[in-house]
Amino acid sequence: MVDKTFPFLKSTLEEVSKQHPTPFYIYDENAIRQQARSLNQAFSWNNGFKEYFAVKAAPNPFILKILKQDGLGLDCSSLSELNLAEKAGLMGEEIMFSSNDTPIDEFIKAASIGAIINFDDINHISFLDKYIPLPNIICLRFNPGHLKTGNLIIGHPVESKFGLTQEQLFDGYRLLRDKGVKRFGLHTMVASNELDLDYFIETADMLFQLVIDISKKLGIRFEFVNLGGGIGIPYEPDQQHVDLQSLSDGIKLSYQERIVANNLDPLKIFLECGRLITGPFGYLVTRVRHIKNSYKDFVGLDACMADLMRPGLYGAYHHISVPGKESWAPNKIYDVTGSLCENNDKFAINRHLPELAIGDLLVIHDTGAHGHAMGFNYNGKLRSAELLLRPTGKIILIRRAETMDDYFATIDFHALDNFL
Amino acid sequence: MVDKTFPFLKSTLEEVSKQHPTPFYIYDENAIRQQARSLNQAFSWNNGFKEYFAVKAAPNPFILKILKQDGLGLDCSSLSELNLAEKAGLMGEEIMFSSNDTPIDEFIKAASIGAIINFDDINHISFLDKYIPLPNIICLRFNPGHLKTGNLIIGHPVESKFGLTQEQLFDGYRLLRDKGVKRFGLHTMVASNELDLDYFIETADMLFQLVIDISKKLGIRFEFVNLGGGIGIPYEPDQQHVDLQSLSDGIKLSYQERIVANNLDPLKIFLECGRLITGPFGYLVTRVRHIKNSYKDFVGLDACMADLMRPGLYGAYHHISVPGKESWAPNKIYDVTGSLCENNDKFAINRHLPELAIGDLLVIHDTGAHGHAMGFNYNGKLRSAELLLRPTGKIILIRRAETMDDYFATIDFHALDNFL
Repeated sequence: MVDKTFPFLKSTLEEVSKQHPTPFYIYDENAIRQQARSLNQAFSWNNGFKEYFAVKAAPNPFILKILKQDGLGLDCSSLSELNLAEKAGLMGEEIMFSSNDTPIDEFIKAASIGAIINFDDINHISFLDKYIPLPNIICLRFNPGHLKTGNLIIGHPVESKFGLTQEQLFDGYRLLRDKGVKRFGLHTMVASNELDLDYFIETADMLFQLVIDISKKLGIRFEFVNLGGGIGIPYEPDQQHVDLQSLSDGIKLSYQERIVANNLDPLKIFLECGRLITGPFGYLVTRVRHIKNSYKDFVGLDACMADLMRPGLYGAYHHISVPGKESWAPNKIYDVTGSLCENNDKFAINRHLPELAIGDLLVIHDTGAHGHAMGFNYNGKLRSAELLLRPTGKIILIRRAETMDDYFATIDFHALDNFL
Repeated sequence: MVDKTFPFLKSTLEEVSKQHPTPFYIYDENAIRQQARSLNQAFSWNNGFKEYFAVKAAPNPFILKILKQDGLGLDCSSLSELNLAEKAGLMGEEIMFSSNDTPIDEFIKAASIGAIINFDDINHISFLDKYIPLPNIICLRFNPGHLKTGNLIIGHPVESKFGLTQEQLFDGYRLLRDKGVKRFGLHTMVASNELDLDYFIETADMLFQLVIDISKKLGIRFEFVNLGGGIGIPYEPDQQHVDLQSLSDGIKLSYQERIVANNLDPLKIFLECGRLITGPFGYLVTRVRHIKNSYKDFVGLDACMADLMRPGLYGAYHHISVPGKESWAPNKIYDVTGSLCENNDKFAINRHLPELAIGDLLVIHDTGAHGHAMGFNYNGKLRSAELLLRPTGKIILIRRAETMDDYFATIDFHALDNFL
């Protein structure tokens, strides 16, 4: 069982909501820092280990700045994310640029700030080479195809748009070597929200073996492997956290048996987790707006799918707590809904909760990753604010809520008036 | 077979793209107007018939203004959409406010502009009555529960968060009558993207019978029934358009047998279609950025899931044309992808297309509804511009593309600089 208590008193949240009306996201800085440190600690045996936080999970520059302070890099996938990384104070090889179907201006931007470029396609080598000199360090993304089964969220590698085949990897590194690139990395990403640590150890195994094979065949030396992200978190109370030390121990064993035994040591290990770092430490705080009883009992919140898409999109479970009613028996069954004109705008279906009343605060757990980031404006809904609980106990605003003006920003109303 | 040609020459699109780089949406004003008129024409036997266009399908005020000119009203579901309707020049009973889990300020706004309020919950009667006098005209939303099976997209009514049970309908109208409300409407919405016209005729039948039962029992007179939207469009070339005249004829027959025969004539028929009106007449124009060959052949576009979510979200089919290659044999098989770091960012899987080259323009069809409207900023992606082909042949900008500044608008970078 995972502990699903949260670091806020009801009175604190009520106080905060006077200045920042619900719904809002709130992140726990201390917990995020601790998680980052735990991961670094678990892999401290590996000289040069670096976790590149997947910006898309929580693209807030305040959070990114915190992560940098604890030694993390950033995994960026677009021009906006590169800009965010820069604004958060990261530069050079603190940034990994892993994208696909990439426009040239994004590659050039990545190269100009010295980010490590991770090519998704063998053709991107000559594509970039046409415009600018290839960077001195290049990574290639491996798609294992039939060698790996993938998981439910990310799909089967052989159907995936990402990465190079094994044959293309050999061709790619040969081409890079012949073009004078000196420093090499190898990347894969074949899981999403996976809790089975063996899956990651097998992935490391697979990449280490590839490093051996490619190094021998091409006479190049790998500087790092990027094992990707995808480490899951226990959204459901009866799930377990991935034990980071056991994960690291398993990867270390494989490292010794393959990398050290083949004199390919040192080889830096990189990860690019998002969800693991911030997911459990962000909370969507919302308030009961309506209770409705028709064929079922419904709780209507002031948050909706525009704030958090995962339940509507994937049927994903997010734990829900009711501050002030922690000791109440969860003897009511509710569908917990938002106000979108879409029946899938439900945060929970048939959820056991204490009896709720209009005005109750609800805390939706594990929304620190792929939460606010995936919001949209469908139905004209506005995306919520983000707050941060500092280690001092102070709560600060790190993103204001959207306004109607934001929603209308791309419309020229003067032109509309003259439109006949 | 449905004709999937489009009203643009390749040379026109190439010319347009010089000023408005791809990707962009473009809508065909003439075709939208014709569709609106066809629907009005089909139901011209019904005195007071009105189609309330579902704003969420295409929340662009230029399009809303066009629809008003052709006699359509607007179905709004949120404060933003009410504001959009106002800005497009609509007012009073030209606006239907059908929402759920509704905040009080949105009800008050709807009442203040004289919109017809459609209550989703019996409790909303007393909820609104606490704040302002109930409007003189009120509609209630019926959820038929087990009486109706629903369809795949909208789900089963008995599991749905929307509407009142039959028993609640009787209680609701009695309460409204006793509170002095004089004008009544009845609404339901039980389908989404449904092509079977019998489904809609049966729904009309069901509502007409309810009008009879409630009128007799409570001694009230209904002014309108709102049959909702949900009329589908043929996304796939081998599907058929719903024949609007046959649909109208079927509803007319039921109207005569039930409403006229029971002396409940006149009863206005309202619809609230979105997709039907604009869906087939909007096109997402995009360009091939990369061709990739790994385990499959991939076409990478400059559009992505941020521009159009339906394929990634629902696995929805959208027809794809290649301007200038109309006569080429579709003898290649591609996955057509965007650049999001999500494997479901694919516009098509295993699609037969002519051989494509980098730089080719692609037109993604039937994106005039629930296209741009559902876009998000995940991965830091920016949403595209919207253009309009006027009946004169002129092409104008009706929404500019998002910029990086829009993306960063809710972040206080000065505070970030001082954040330690």
